[in-house]
Amino acid sequence: MVCIAIPASFVSSVIKDAAKKKVEAAIVISAGFKETGEKGAKIEKELAETCKKAGIRLLGPNVLGMICSKSQLNASFAASTTIEGDIAFLSQSGAFCTAMLDMSLEKKLGFSHFVSLGNKADIHELDLIDYWQKDDAVKVIGAYLEEISQGQELLQLVRESDKKKPLIVFKPGQSEEAKKAISSHTGSMAGSTQAFKTAIYQNGIIEATEINQMFYLMMGFSWATPPKGNRVAVVTNAGGPGIITTDELIAQGMQMAEISKETKKEIKKYLPPTASLDNPIDVIGDALAERYRVPIDILTKDKNVDAIVVVLTPQLITQIEETAKLIVSSAKLTDKPIFPVFLGGKYILNGLQRLYEKKIPSFRYISDAVGVLSTMYKYSKIQESLASAENRNSAVVLKHTSKGKYSKQMDKELEKGKETPSEELVENIAREVGLDLPDQLISRDLNEVLEFAEDKYPVVVKATTEAIAHKTDVDALFLNIKNPNDLEKIFHRLTKTIKRESKILKPEVLVQEQVSYREELIIGASRDGASDVYIHGTPGFGHLILFGKGGIYTEVYKDIESVLVPASKAQMKEALLKTKVSQILQGVRGRKKLSLDKVIKTIQAIQKMVVLYPQIKSLDLNPVVVTEKRAIALDIKIFIEN
Amino acid sequence: MVCIAIPASFVSSVIKDAAKKKVEAAIVISAGFKETGEKGAKIEKELAETCKKAGIRLLGPNVLGMICSKSQLNASFAASTTIEGDIAFLSQSGAFCTAMLDMSLEKKLGFSHFVSLGNKADIHELDLIDYWQKDDAVKVIGAYLEEISQGQELLQLVRESDKKKPLIVFKPGQSEEAKKAISSHTGSMAGSTQAFKTAIYQNGIIEATEINQMFYLMMGFSWATPPKGNRVAVVTNAGGPGIITTDELIAQGMQMAEISKETKKEIKKYLPPTASLDNPIDVIGDALAERYRVPIDILTKDKNVDAIVVVLTPQLITQIEETAKLIVSSAKLTDKPIFPVFLGGKYILNGLQRLYEKKIPSFRYISDAVGVLSTMYKYSKIQESLASAENRNSAVVLKHTSKGKYSKQMDKELEKGKETPSEELVENIAREVGLDLPDQLISRDLNEVLEFAEDKYPVVVKATTEAIAHKTDVDALFLNIKNPNDLEKIFHRLTKTIKRESKILKPEVLVQEQVSYREELIIGASRDGASDVYIHGTPGFGHLILFGKGGIYTEVYKDIESVLVPASKAQMKEALLKTKVSQILQGVRGRKKLSLDKVIKTIQAIQKMVVLYPQIKSLDLNPVVVTEKRAIALDIKIFIEN
Repeated sequence: MVCIAIPASFVSSVIKDAAKKKVEAAIVISAGFKETGEKGAKIEKELAETCKKAGIRLLGPNVLGMICSKSQLNASFAASTTIEGDIAFLSQSGAFCTAMLDMSLEKKLGFSHFVSLGNKADIHELDLIDYWQKDDAVKVIGAYLEEISQGQELLQLVRESDKKKPLIVFKPGQSEEAKKAISSHTGSMAGSTQAFKTAIYQNGIIEATEINQMFYLMMGFSWATPPKGNRVAVVTNAGGPGIITTDELIAQGMQMAEISKETKKEIKKYLPPTASLDNPIDVIGDALAERYRVPIDILTKDKNVDAIVVVLTPQLITQIEETAKLIVSSAKLTDKPIFPVFLGGKYILNGLQRLYEKKIPSFRYISDAVGVLSTMYKYSKIQESLASAENRNSAVVLKHTSKGKYSKQMDKELEKGKETPSEELVENIAREVGLDLPDQLISRDLNEVLEFAEDKYPVVVKATTEAIAHKTDVDALFLNIKNPNDLEKIFHRLTKTIKRESKILKPEVLVQEQVSYREELIIGASRDGASDVYIHGTPGFGHLILFGKGGIYTEVYKDIESVLVPASKAQMKEALLKTKVSQILQGVRGRKKLSLDKVIKTIQAIQKMVVLYPQIKSLDLNPVVVTEKRAIALDIKIFIEN
Repeated sequence: MVCIAIPASFVSSVIKDAAKKKVEAAIVISAGFKETGEKGAKIEKELAETCKKAGIRLLGPNVLGMICSKSQLNASFAASTTIEGDIAFLSQSGAFCTAMLDMSLEKKLGFSHFVSLGNKADIHELDLIDYWQKDDAVKVIGAYLEEISQGQELLQLVRESDKKKPLIVFKPGQSEEAKKAISSHTGSMAGSTQAFKTAIYQNGIIEATEINQMFYLMMGFSWATPPKGNRVAVVTNAGGPGIITTDELIAQGMQMAEISKETKKEIKKYLPPTASLDNPIDVIGDALAERYRVPIDILTKDKNVDAIVVVLTPQLITQIEETAKLIVSSAKLTDKPIFPVFLGGKYILNGLQRLYEKKIPSFRYISDAVGVLSTMYKYSKIQESLASAENRNSAVVLKHTSKGKYSKQMDKELEKGKETPSEELVENIAREVGLDLPDQLISRDLNEVLEFAEDKYPVVVKATTEAIAHKTDVDALFLNIKNPNDLEKIFHRLTKTIKRESKILKPEVLVQEQVSYREELIIGASRDGASDVYIHGTPGFGHLILFGKGGIYTEVYKDIESVLVPASKAQMKEALLKTKVSQILQGVRGRKKLSLDKVIKTIQAIQKMVVLYPQIKSLDLNPVVVTEKRAIALDIKIFIEN
């Protein structure tokens, strides 16, 4: 390996020399490439090509370098080296590395690998994550990424890995303002926020949104075992902070453990009579170290307790360091996580140091301790769920990519430069994937329209999507037409409007039976990446399928959840049940239940549709009318793009 | 003053001795009072009475004590004393005090007063806050309270104080689980969470929910001036953390300042060509201290910039302490807040120490820095709004307490043990306060009913609230009755139902014109405290008025906001506009506007009603139907209690 730190324009020539010496890898620390603008981007491209030709793998350019504790290698310009440990960490920002490294020195957190990725001209996160998943020296993977190179493929890697390791990802730039800052930073564009959030949740990846949070999450996963359940006992020498901890646990989805009678009885022997034995267990302000140790040890044996948070305030006689020492010895005797929170500043620091030295995840903020515990719990729950056969097989659907009956027809429409396929094609693919459609007729012939409507009154008449994109804006949608007379009048009125708006001489109209409304949903899809997103090595996460409350309240309540393709039926159901409108489908306050199953079938149909036709850039079923037995797609709009 | 720390049962006798010596004040550190149960509560009551008789003011019992820097007094059993400063701090938890004190020693934060309140047998938060508001040595007030003794009066004190000082309140116990912990802690009950939250927001009190957050808020308000606006410049030596800071600022309601051309031009002179001049300003990883100082100084003069966040990562040649020193000198030249965030652990600590020594609010978490800045900004905005004549006079309404025309009648109903006043009384007070009611008739005579309905079809028929409390459960509400035939049938059916359910022999029914629906709201009120809540010295916050989306979606979307009595019209409007359903009232997506004004008038009428009749424990207008011109209270339920 060579490590290069000379001005950008000379780097390629060094690579060529190195190739002659059969060098296999290069770290280019030098800046002055893509991040500086067009000229730099050109030099970077050249460098990447040179490396490729020479068979040299390239880390960088524009990196801090790489530290590999196991092999005692520090090829970086970091001010110091890492402590040895089992966390593999990568970062697209060198400065993020230096901050993380400094934190780890203070709190004794150890790394197996510590890599600055820089401009990712060759090696990117997938290479490293793939490698680290297979390396037994790695227990936890952390990644700070401003841009994800190949979304779909990252997810595939995570899904298919045999050894499930916690992967913690921090991706900033989720506000529009931050996106501006990113493009001026490493020249990469921030991907779709919602696709990212859905992707990582659905695949059991852990998200961090603050530097310290990421640090503590890595600490938690490296030093402790996730709790088996969410029932937490709190041991404290202070009532107030006990209450605060309770609030925080509940807010973060954990539960206060119901401590068993036997445990209470046992603990009671060792505590003064005024101590509270209800959870939180208040060992009282004059507790010495031993009065902490005993209840902790007893609690670890209570099968109602999955984890313990120990809260310490530095009172007059509190034995801070001694308590830390005893917590260490208790923690070593159990698999249940014991997370101490030492509240204070000057006097508590030495106590915390003792805990860090012995690899006990320890905290100064109650919210940090509870956050890590809760994330570890949720992580293990999600992993359990991902291990189900149904979820493991969710990607099967991707085998059918671009295999729709009408794929050629769709491509033809694209070639013609159309952004929306014809009404007929839309109906065909809707029927192909099994969407439930209202009976309808598209025709320019009044007699045909009248005949169709004969046994269906009341009916709805509207313009086709080709004619007018946003129907309600131009008076091109008519509801509740009850008889042939009205239908005739409206037919003439509508065709006149379409002629005026679209310059079509003899326009078609669409007639449908009118469904008696029950609850309106909106179901849509939106593609992150291009139409080749499901092909190996392309960027983007693929199609996000969104669903939630439709009608007038759509924009008001924004009650929308999503899954990313591929999603299993169970994942669709889980996400759908997170919408508030699903309470109505389930029959809120004694109302009739509507067909949740048919809504899920519709989501499945949409997944099938975008897989068969990845040319679909976005689509809307709006509204989907849900009745007791059906989920009918009243109106379908599809936009296509390569 | 005497300071007593002997077993609880002997304290009263010491007080008696002290009285003979003309002692004026006592601090009782001893525990073993109310917090231990009934017996302790009795001793505490006795102690309070002894003190009162002797004319001795009592702090405690069950306190850590009190520190008063100005007079060099430390009457506490804290392990050390505070640094002198301008923050007055009180806490109901002694342990919270010790943690806060330890934090303050580490970060050099100074206090004028530091008081542990304990069981509040005599002196409580109002005494101290009142005193501190008048004391020029105090700039900021912090209070950790598990229970607020006199809600209405605290708000009055804050409203009427001439010298507005930031008051930061931390009140834990907002989850049901935490409330259990509180009652076992100091034996006090947690008040209504929502009333508290509304009360403090509406009166410009600042809320803290984490110990560290409270500490940093006190630091911010003590050491810096609130920013005049929300436009923030970020100066950083690292792109990644700059992006994270941007995300955090936007998430917390701040804006990225648009730096003026002149400023950019000026800064450009001093930075290397690759440095980014767009906000965040990236001074690049090799920045020495001086390259931080220059842009900071220039930015403080830009009128588009209200505050600066300085982000530092410890890179190889970063001058951490020197940069801190220069930030101090820059900060001393301007009123605009400059908040440094030093990211890291081991190497950054000395830099932070220099900042703390010179009273620069400095942080290790980006979220803490932005949180304090954003809270200070919002605080000054709310204070501006509270200074308006309308808001200053909002309490005028309270002069009419218990002066309703029907007050005596209401009291009679209470004496009779009734929980709901008669339909007639409800209608009378509804008309008295000016609620918009549908035309209606209450009668047991079919002919009278038919006559009333003659020119009003369609009509609604229902049971009176006296007859059946929850109408829809027992088929006692009939809509859309279109003709006398149907009306007659339904009249008989309903009276039969009422007889069966309520055992009334000849029941009344209620007939109303049916309003053509537009949007349904729910408007209600709920009293915190007893019916004497508006009288001096009583506990509770008074009536909370709640309003939001009504109908089937009420429980689903929980789109409800609130004001606390007394509220100005402007405050009602502000809260109403926070509901999502208000977007519909304002005409979402080109729909017709509905009468927002009439909704506000209804809220005002409800405020008038609960002030005239504080016997009202709770009430519901459900639904309130809002049309283009009216807000009609279709159904009114009132519950009364002393």
